[in-house]
Amino acid sequence: MRFTGRELRSKIDEDGTLSLSLEQVEVGDPADDEIVVRIEAAPINPSDLGMLLGPADVSTLATRNGVGLTFSVPESRRAAVAGRIGQSEPVGNEGAGLVVATGKDASFLDGKRVGMIGGAMYADYRAIKARDVIPLPDGATSADGASMFVNPLTALGFVETARRGGHQAIVHTAAASNLGQMLQRLCLADGIPLVNIVRSQAQADILRGIGATHVVNSKDADFGARLAQAIEETGATVAFDAIGGGTLGSEIVQAMERAAINRMTEYNRYGSTVLKQLYIYGALDPSPTMLNRMAFGFQWGVSGWLLFPFLQSAGAETVQRMRARVVEELTTTFASRYTRVIGLAEALDPDVLRAYERKATGEKFLIDPTKG
Amino acid sequence: MRFTGRELRSKIDEDGTLSLSLEQVEVGDPADDEIVVRIEAAPINPSDLGMLLGPADVSTLATRNGVGLTFSVPESRRAAVAGRIGQSEPVGNEGAGLVVATGKDASFLDGKRVGMIGGAMYADYRAIKARDVIPLPDGATSADGASMFVNPLTALGFVETARRGGHQAIVHTAAASNLGQMLQRLCLADGIPLVNIVRSQAQADILRGIGATHVVNSKDADFGARLAQAIEETGATVAFDAIGGGTLGSEIVQAMERAAINRMTEYNRYGSTVLKQLYIYGALDPSPTMLNRMAFGFQWGVSGWLLFPFLQSAGAETVQRMRARVVEELTTTFASRYTRVIGLAEALDPDVLRAYERKATGEKFLIDPTKG
Repeated sequence: MRFTGRELRSKIDEDGTLSLSLEQVEVGDPADDEIVVRIEAAPINPSDLGMLLGPADVSTLATRNGVGLTFSVPESRRAAVAGRIGQSEPVGNEGAGLVVATGKDASFLDGKRVGMIGGAMYADYRAIKARDVIPLPDGATSADGASMFVNPLTALGFVETARRGGHQAIVHTAAASNLGQMLQRLCLADGIPLVNIVRSQAQADILRGIGATHVVNSKDADFGARLAQAIEETGATVAFDAIGGGTLGSEIVQAMERAAINRMTEYNRYGSTVLKQLYIYGALDPSPTMLNRMAFGFQWGVSGWLLFPFLQSAGAETVQRMRARVVEELTTTFASRYTRVIGLAEALDPDVLRAYERKATGEKFLIDPTKG
Repeated sequence: MRFTGRELRSKIDEDGTLSLSLEQVEVGDPADDEIVVRIEAAPINPSDLGMLLGPADVSTLATRNGVGLTFSVPESRRAAVAGRIGQSEPVGNEGAGLVVATGKDASFLDGKRVGMIGGAMYADYRAIKARDVIPLPDGATSADGASMFVNPLTALGFVETARRGGHQAIVHTAAASNLGQMLQRLCLADGIPLVNIVRSQAQADILRGIGATHVVNSKDADFGARLAQAIEETGATVAFDAIGGGTLGSEIVQAMERAAINRMTEYNRYGSTVLKQLYIYGALDPSPTMLNRMAFGFQWGVSGWLLFPFLQSAGAETVQRMRARVVEELTTTFASRYTRVIGLAEALDPDVLRAYERKATGEKFLIDPTKG
């Protein structure tokens, strides 16, 4: 049995034109260890926008013969995407749907709904290895299972990383995101103090609404004092930062160092002996990271944090345990909320695209290709 | 038997006055596991200047009644030294000398010359536990043994840190220092490719003179290209940076990432999967560290590196092995060269102090209290 359907593609040409289009693709018979899934739900995560729109200037959006959209990538940003020039890239890291065909070693999945990760999820059909999917628990919808990988495993990965480093409490920036809310629910469940840094009262309210104790607003005049107090109270020595640019990460590490020095009984001109670790996992601000490290002492580290390298380093057993927990708490700790469900064609509607590209607080889009 | 002698002290008062003086102190009978050493040689390391002069403004130097010097610590820098206000601090991390008295469990050291670490070495006499000294090999002078801890263990620590991280080659900044020359000799002995970054032709010449292959001068117009080439040729993925401030560390990591991307066969918008690590171990430039991390990929880390925490984490067996190697290669790999030997009183001579505080290329001072 063969399936023909649409697949969303993003391509950057030599001249810097980024084009989005829906291609007709045919999905052949599944191999013995494969299945074919009719996709019913795929979230638009910040990481998907990175592949979809790259470093294009969204204000240059134009329609092309009614069959797609084009954008211009400014000259200065093209070096960063040199590796993908001329390649038609599928988009969509994760999704969920109904199994409509199975290879002979995968028949146990016949007719089930599954969650998946692996790219090319903004499509009608996806052929995938059986081992790369997770059957959804009974009663769960594809919308429930669409985001069961990236955000849940990232939140669990943060906690696992903090535990391995011997940290007792965590600081998180851009904390009102779907991921941030998930991390707060997880930390509440596991009894880990979490300091949430947000940029508006509305974001603070979202987190307070789900039980957050420590929420500090970086727009408040007394932000520095409140951050220091929250770090002092919780003893946080590790931070996960989605912003990256500017001085916020540095301010967090400084506050950790001040709290550590306040607990010291003897002067050491190198600062405290407490290891303070900042992980940068996002790039909401792509400008340089400024580290005022003279106020850190010498026991500090700043690193990139990315889900896939983390999963590789964590080992199969840990990943298996994490995945099992996601299934178990899929509609509680790891529930995702979507503010808008759109069809696959709608993803290329200029107004819709501008809306999900804006990444407004509390907004999250889900693509359901069965809607058109 | 009691010994009376001078000890150099540094003190910062509430009003920001830093004063240096020579105090008369009495060293009593050694405890059973102690010895008394008449100090004959103690180097002036950058780390000693940190305790000696703190963040004082050296241009404010004044003499006080012929018995010492005073300096002013600018208001803005006082918070960093709040912990030592009002305390009279001894100075001098390491040194060497002749054992002049021993406790009953330390008589095996009678009449020997030993190298020591532990502070308060800018003095005529030092009581110290026998386990904290290393007897010098036959024929070695106190000058040979004066610097057998900080620089040798730091150079060995860099190599050990690089090996543990799986790195094959090393980048070092401010590479013409005594430490840098030692690291170059060590890397030559151990067959580890080393990229030396210097700031003048004179510094480059020093390193070429001891057999360095890769030396790049950051003042050259084509520095970026030369650095990239050296990193590409060596495959260096770890750097030890004495400078800290500005963009040099970031440029090194970027060059490592470009070299890694050049070896990749498939595009990954997160960058290479190669871990690139920058360790900041000094602060020749105390201004903020600027990380242009968008060009790093996500597999990177920047950390503080300090000798004592490293030794603690390395474990007793490794430290023992490192110390044994220092003794064995004391006058070859780990030889220190001094350009000027001064007495203890001379250390407080305004002109002499300005000279050693300047840290000019190739210059290194040794204090010999027996000279007066």
